[in-house]
Order: sequence, then structure tokens, then C-alpha cells
Amino acid sequence: MVTTSKKSERVPSANLNRRVERSRHAILTTAFELLSEGGVASFSVDEVARRSGVAKTTIYRHWPTREALVIDACSRMIAEQETPDTGSLEGDVTAILVEIAHLLPTANWSFVLPSIVDTAERNPEFAEIHSRIQRGHAAPLREVLQRAVGRGELSAHADVSTIVAALLGPLFYRRWFSREPIDDQFVKAIIKRVLASL
Amino acid sequence: MVTTSKKSERVPSANLNRRVERSRHAILTTAFELLSEGGVASFSVDEVARRSGVAKTTIYRHWPTREALVIDACSRMIAEQETPDTGSLEGDVTAILVEIAHLLPTANWSFVLPSIVDTAERNPEFAEIHSRIQRGHAAPLREVLQRAVGRGELSAHADVSTIVAALLGPLFYRRWFSREPIDDQFVKAIIKRVLASL
Repeated sequence: MVTTSKKSERVPSANLNRRVERSRHAILTTAFELLSEGGVASFSVDEVARRSGVAKTTIYRHWPTREALVIDACSRMIAEQETPDTGSLEGDVTAILVEIAHLLPTANWSFVLPSIVDTAERNPEFAEIHSRIQRGHAAPLREVLQRAVGRGELSAHADVSTIVAALLGPLFYRRWFSREPIDDQFVKAIIKRVLASL
Repeated sequence: MVTTSKKSERVPSANLNRRVERSRHAILTTAFELLSEGGVASFSVDEVARRSGVAKTTIYRHWPTREALVIDACSRMIAEQETPDTGSLEGDVTAILVEIAHLLPTANWSFVLPSIVDTAERNPEFAEIHSRIQRGHAAPLREVLQRAVGRGELSAHADVSTIVAALLGPLFYRRWFSREPIDDQFVKAIIKRVLASL
């Protein structure tokens, strides 16, 4: 009898899980859409509920606060970038930076990121998630630099964190601050300068 | 009679001008204070009126929209940076970047800027004011680079805009993206790399 009871509970529970998964997915997709449109400031759980068709009570069951939902949606925002392996540091760095340069003017996360940066100024929880997103951004670059150290192409004393800032900083500067175009010529000039100085 | 009439009008008009100037100043100071606290998103004319003690109708007489007031307050935000003249490109660049590095973690505009960047993503008027703020930021750097060209220390073909991005980008990257410390060692490493590559 115990077995039967367990079995009869399992079927609805599996359905329930699928349903929960579906509504979680719908909520996150809508949350991401809203963030892309208006940033963190104008983001509301009411609007997520309205657009996704999922009840607010259900949303709050999964994410206890508006902040928790924003943070979860943000952290799924940036697609994992594959780490290239061209055999040389210059080839690897070029592959990564050219891809970022192409994404910066077009990708959804590129429009949402300033809103996260802004929120992070006043909210330590956001600052933490933002650091995590940024570490994800920089991870492939760190990996190819470490690999170059392994090959002896780069000194083991090289300051990887400074090199990452020297490579990504100028691209980010043009995207969000000077608002100048990030063309291949610019990207290659930056790479050439940084690698020449190693 | 005409003269007398004109004279009698001039005195109240001068008083009026002083009063107008005083209330403009109070409004802009309060607007800047509010922007520093909560960024562009939570900025409201109601709150400016409440805190400054100036009537909303008066505020709207000077700035027809909330956006106009925000933009005016933002554009007065960044203190003019003096252009150093140490006699060498390295000395000048170091003086400028060390000052920016010290301001980035502390200055009010540094906390407000992400909010302007974010608003600029969705508002072309803000994008324009933001570009202007950024050109102001970069002006002393451009000036010392041009001066170095004049002295023959830097090639006349040098791409000043790329050099500015290579110098400021890494500092901005650490301040707003990776949130790592911007110490003198980092600033000097960036300068050394960029100048060595010229």
C-alpha cells in the first residue's frame, strides 16, 4: 500500500515539476525581455506577471523579492563565450576581442549592463552579481593568457588582471563612454599595443 | 518722465534677477544632490521642489521638462580638470591619470555616471549630453597628446582617440566593471604600456 501510494503521488509530482519548470522558464524569459527594454529601474514583477501570464503569487514563490528575480535573470543574460585555441596568444586574444567587439553594439546584455552597473552603485547584492557577470566576461581572456604562460609565450610574472583591463577597457570605454565605433582597426590597434608591451 | 520710469523699473528688475539666480542655483544644487543619491531613474521634480523649497511652477518655468533639468544638472557635474604642463608626455599623462584614479572611487559624478550611461542607452538627448561630458573628461588628455605632437615627442600620425581609449578605458573598466582597486601601481603599469607602444 505504501508503494502504491508513493507511485500514485509520483505521477502528479512529475507533472507538477514540468509545470513548475515551464513557468520558471516563462518568468525568466519575460524578465530578461523587460530588462532589455527598460533596464533595472523600470522593471516590475507586476509587468512580468502580466506579460508571462504567470500569477504574481507564483512568481514570488520562486523569487522572494523583485531583486532576486532581476539578479537571476541578469546572471543568465550573458551567453557563455567559447575559449578559442588558435595556438598563439595573439590569435586567441584577437578571436576573443573581435567577437566581443561585434557583440557590444548588438547584444541585449550590452544594453542592460549599464543599468546593472548603475544599480550596483547603490546595492551590494547587485554589485556581487555584477562582479560575477564580469568575471564570466573576462574568463576566456584569462584562460588564453594562462595558457600562454604555460607555453612560455608569456612570463609567469605577467599581471593577468592588468592585461585583461588593458584589453577590455578600451572596448568598453568606446561602447559606453565615448560612444565611438569599435571597428576591427581599433580592436587590432589595442591588441597590438598591449601584446607589444608584454 | 521716460527716464524716471525706466529707472524705477530697473531696481525691482535687478532684485528679481538676483532672486531668479538664487532659485536657479538652489534648484541645480538640489537636483545634483538628488542625482548623486539615486541616479536618473528615481529623480523627480516633486522632490527637487520639496527639498529646495522652490515651487514646482518656478522650476518648470526654467526647465520645461524633468529631462531638461537632469541634463543641465548633469552637465555641470564634472569639475573642470586643469591641464598639467610638466614638460614631458609621461609627466603630463601621469598627472592626469593619477588625478582621475583618485576621483573615480570618491567623486559624486563617478556614482551618477552609470545612471547617465544607462539613460543614454534609451534616450538620444541624454546620449548627446553624455558624449559632451565624456569629451570634457578626455579634453586634458587630448591636449597633452597634441602638445607632445607639437614637441615632436609623439608622431603627428598618432591616433589620439585610440590612445585616449587605451589610457582611460582600463581605469573605467576597473571602476565600473571589474570593480577592482585602481591603485597607483595599476595606473603606472597602464601608462608605461601605452607610452611604450607609441
